Amino acid sequence: MFFGVDIGGTSIKIGAFNSGKLVEKWQIKLDFKTAEELVDVIYNSINSRYDSISGIGIGCPGFIVDNFIYESANIHFLNQTNLVTLFHLKTDAKIRLVNDANAAALGEAYFCGYKNLLFVTLGTGVGGGLVVNGNILEGAHGAGMELGHLHNDDTYNFTCGCGKKGCVETLSSATGLVNIANSLVGHYQTNIKQPFNAKKIFDGAKVEDELATKAVEIFSDYLGKALANACILVDPGIIMLGGGVSNAGDFLLEKVQASFQKYALKVIADTKIILAALGDEAGMYGAYYLVANKEA
Amino acid sequence: MFFGVDIGGTSIKIGAFNSGKLVEKWQIKLDFKTAEELVDVIYNSINSRYDSISGIGIGCPGFIVDNFIYESANIHFLNQTNLVTLFHLKTDAKIRLVNDANAAALGEAYFCGYKNLLFVTLGTGVGGGLVVNGNILEGAHGAGMELGHLHNDDTYNFTCGCGKKGCVETLSSATGLVNIANSLVGHYQTNIKQPFNAKKIFDGAKVEDELATKAVEIFSDYLGKALANACILVDPGIIMLGGGVSNAGDFLLEKVQASFQKYALKVIADTKIILAALGDEAGMYGAYYLVANKEA
Repeated sequence: MFFGVDIGGTSIKIGAFNSGKLVEKWQIKLDFKTAEELVDVIYNSINSRYDSISGIGIGCPGFIVDNFIYESANIHFLNQTNLVTLFHLKTDAKIRLVNDANAAALGEAYFCGYKNLLFVTLGTGVGGGLVVNGNILEGAHGAGMELGHLHNDDTYNFTCGCGKKGCVETLSSATGLVNIANSLVGHYQTNIKQPFNAKKIFDGAKVEDELATKAVEIFSDYLGKALANACILVDPGIIMLGGGVSNAGDFLLEKVQASFQKYALKVIADTKIILAALGDEAGMYGAYYLVANKEA
Repeated sequence: MFFGVDIGGTSIKIGAFNSGKLVEKWQIKLDFKTAEELVDVIYNSINSRYDSISGIGIGCPGFIVDNFIYESANIHFLNQTNLVTLFHLKTDAKIRLVNDANAAALGEAYFCGYKNLLFVTLGTGVGGGLVVNGNILEGAHGAGMELGHLHNDDTYNFTCGCGKKGCVETLSSATGLVNIANSLVGHYQTNIKQPFNAKKIFDGAKVEDELATKAVEIFSDYLGKALANACILVDPGIIMLGGGVSNAGDFLLEKVQASFQKYALKVIADTKIILAALGDEAGMYGAYYLVANKEA
């Protein structure tokens, strides 16, 4: 049996895979203080359910290169740790570790049969993962496809969590959509009750609320521009949108596709933009594919 | 013997390689009307000098995927052609074809021993090539690392050859530097005789001509921003600057490095920016490495 683990900000999802199929999944609350404790709990949780562990693949937030976590903004006790070494104190099973968005990208790519894929996750922030010829582009510092921090705006100039201004995720995330909506108050009519959130704004736009419509228009325009800029550099042929904000579905997709056309160089204009297939299981799948070394 | 061919806008450079060493190089004027004629001349030129041809690698301007030229903006008769098929009417030797900037990237990467490299050529336009784990990132449409068309500016809004505004090459090429200098006339003092060219402007900046200094400052600021944006997506660890404009050398390099620091996310801040090593032989070397299948 192989296992795919997806470490999130508040919980750990674990999937058990047999011959490419997810046969069982469960969740653990993330409530630890040390990397050793984290490894203990994940290993014991798997070991108590399954006798035979061939490999464990793990997706984890942070800048990760060759299984080493240089920095994890969300889970500070993982900074500068090597989870593989810690796991190998307990088991000889093959262990592989990658960035969580990269794991999700790989999961979607393999599951859908794409050798090349730009996967973008639109949530509180914006994450990205690039699969090139079946492999994750991890980067020299583990910063491969950190799309959320591409500089994309000199107009709104919202400050990003990274300290810079104008990053993609200051506009094209759930937080970004709220930033935009807040900046429009007083300029456009709205029936939406404040405080805003992304769902309220999308729901408002769907019933043509004036402020919400404008906010979604700006959000989509900047996202399409960011995607066009990414494609002129890495030309994946296919872009997949995942994460909570992508639940806005075709309503969002059509607007982003239109904006992409506006900014994209002609040669890449037929790049497909589609919605993710695996939802919140993508990371588990990708972690599994990575350690089981499946082919796209 | 293996051969590396670099097809340029006005001439074709051919290098003969033996055991990794460039043993002879020569040039042919590009003066043809058809792809068949081009292949004839290249093949006959090699065949008249060498009896044994193991392989011919070719770098060529255009959007190229899997040896097929979808579009070559500079050499129209190559659009929608397969040079490999044409060569195979004459020889059984292994033939490989890639974009010229990608060939140069591969040449520099292998020659200098880098597995990963972002190569940027600053000439009349701006070209780029990305080597990931020893392989060129060609892209689904052959648009991999078309850095010149990354949207990078909403202030000057110069129109690009591609029809869009604000592309990297409208500011950070030889043409771009002249665009910037022209826009500064009347606002800054200058002793440089018009019409401007890139060399005059760099020479002026080196002796602290006011307008030239400002123009180079703007040029470098935008280039550093573009490189920081590329690195947050592909994180190569090393950027190499080549092309005619890079002859400005350390004077340019220091300014670009400072600008890169201003825009780069902390995790990629130690990315090295260096000058190219192979000059105008990079394309031949890359074409050779490609067909001879050398390892970085």
